[in-house]
Amino acid sequence: MEFTFRAVGIIRSCFKEKFGIPRQPGLVPDARATLELLPPYNCAEALRGLENFSHLWLLFVFHACPDNRERTTVRPPRLGGNQRLGVFATRGTHRPNPIGMSAVELAGIEQVNGQWLLDLKGADLLDGTPIIDIKPYLPYADSLPDARGGFADSAPPPSLRVEFSEAALACCRELEADRPGLQTLIVQILRYDPRPAYRKNQESARIYGLRLFDRDVRWQAGDGWARVIEIVPAKAL
Amino acid sequence: MEFTFRAVGIIRSCFKEKFGIPRQPGLVPDARATLELLPPYNCAEALRGLENFSHLWLLFVFHACPDNRERTTVRPPRLGGNQRLGVFATRGTHRPNPIGMSAVELAGIEQVNGQWLLDLKGADLLDGTPIIDIKPYLPYADSLPDARGGFADSAPPPSLRVEFSEAALACCRELEADRPGLQTLIVQILRYDPRPAYRKNQESARIYGLRLFDRDVRWQAGDGWARVIEIVPAKAL
Repeated sequence: MEFTFRAVGIIRSCFKEKFGIPRQPGLVPDARATLELLPPYNCAEALRGLENFSHLWLLFVFHACPDNRERTTVRPPRLGGNQRLGVFATRGTHRPNPIGMSAVELAGIEQVNGQWLLDLKGADLLDGTPIIDIKPYLPYADSLPDARGGFADSAPPPSLRVEFSEAALACCRELEADRPGLQTLIVQILRYDPRPAYRKNQESARIYGLRLFDRDVRWQAGDGWARVIEIVPAKAL
Repeated sequence: MEFTFRAVGIIRSCFKEKFGIPRQPGLVPDARATLELLPPYNCAEALRGLENFSHLWLLFVFHACPDNRERTTVRPPRLGGNQRLGVFATRGTHRPNPIGMSAVELAGIEQVNGQWLLDLKGADLLDGTPIIDIKPYLPYADSLPDARGGFADSAPPPSLRVEFSEAALACCRELEADRPGLQTLIVQILRYDPRPAYRKNQESARIYGLRLFDRDVRWQAGDGWARVIEIVPAKAL
């Protein structure tokens, strides 16, 4: 039994590669993204009434993940990456059908040169993600604060203290003329420690790169800390 | 940009036709449904760890709805059916891609004759609905009690007082040997008034049929009341 769906919109986001994307929406509130509507939904009618909702569900396709349709178990990062759970017991990206869902804040709706745009906050989405549905968040039906959340019953606590080198700080200051809040955004991302679980106990000499917008944020990490070394123009992917 | 997905499971539900299905999950807590896993996901591995979650998200296909992909506005029943909103501002069934999402309670997991089954409560799903993904409900990421819910900011209040004829009551008693809680289920469904909005002010002579399991529940309604007249074996659909 097969079904064919098509994109109704595309995400434009600061996250240009998978590494560093927060593992759930809302963890990095200053991550802004823009949803560009595609025809025939690039019109005021399709959005009429949406402005009355503070949050949206986005259903999207994990477009940059390899096909893993036959896989029945995955290793969630929250469990350290060494314990297998059923695909249906996790929110991981490797799924029978590569569909993701995120609740995001709707910060605004605007039209620029004929293109309708939804301005989103707290998004955990890769640049270029195809959106296959947008639904209003209905608190009376969707909010179940007493649900039992299994291995992920609470938000992951920030685990790293984030510092900046003087060079990185100077670079932030300069870039913030165009990208207000860049430093805060970097702190919000790094404090959750985006390193793969199996690397977290390794030596701190390794320099990680995290691509944000058109910049490569270069950082190191150790036990309880991350340090941004420099922020350089990103090489083409 | 097109994507092809396939069913990972099928819903077995008391709701054999669209009429009478609650408009959101959870409104009819006694509506039980069963999710049958399809190969290759009909196995213990795919479900490992799911038992630790109290609620699930089901992503499903509105399989019994006509194709309305080009439609950009719909008339939500909550607004009386005479006001048009953008498809993305409603949770209606007519959508650019016919995908629905429901948060349901996971009442149990069992295996019967090699078939893995998820026992669900509060489902608002038509019998035969294809499921394309199952995800655990994560309260820390999914529960946003302070979200602003637009035109559907709170659950619809039950609007009808439900009564039974003596014949209907006797029939309930008899059927409840096999279908415990049938009367409660009927009350939970009818009190939300499943009639289309444009019929709600019409005369009460009309007899409505509501197919539940293999029975046809026949009822009438007027201003503030619904009355179950009889419960008869359903004709083949």
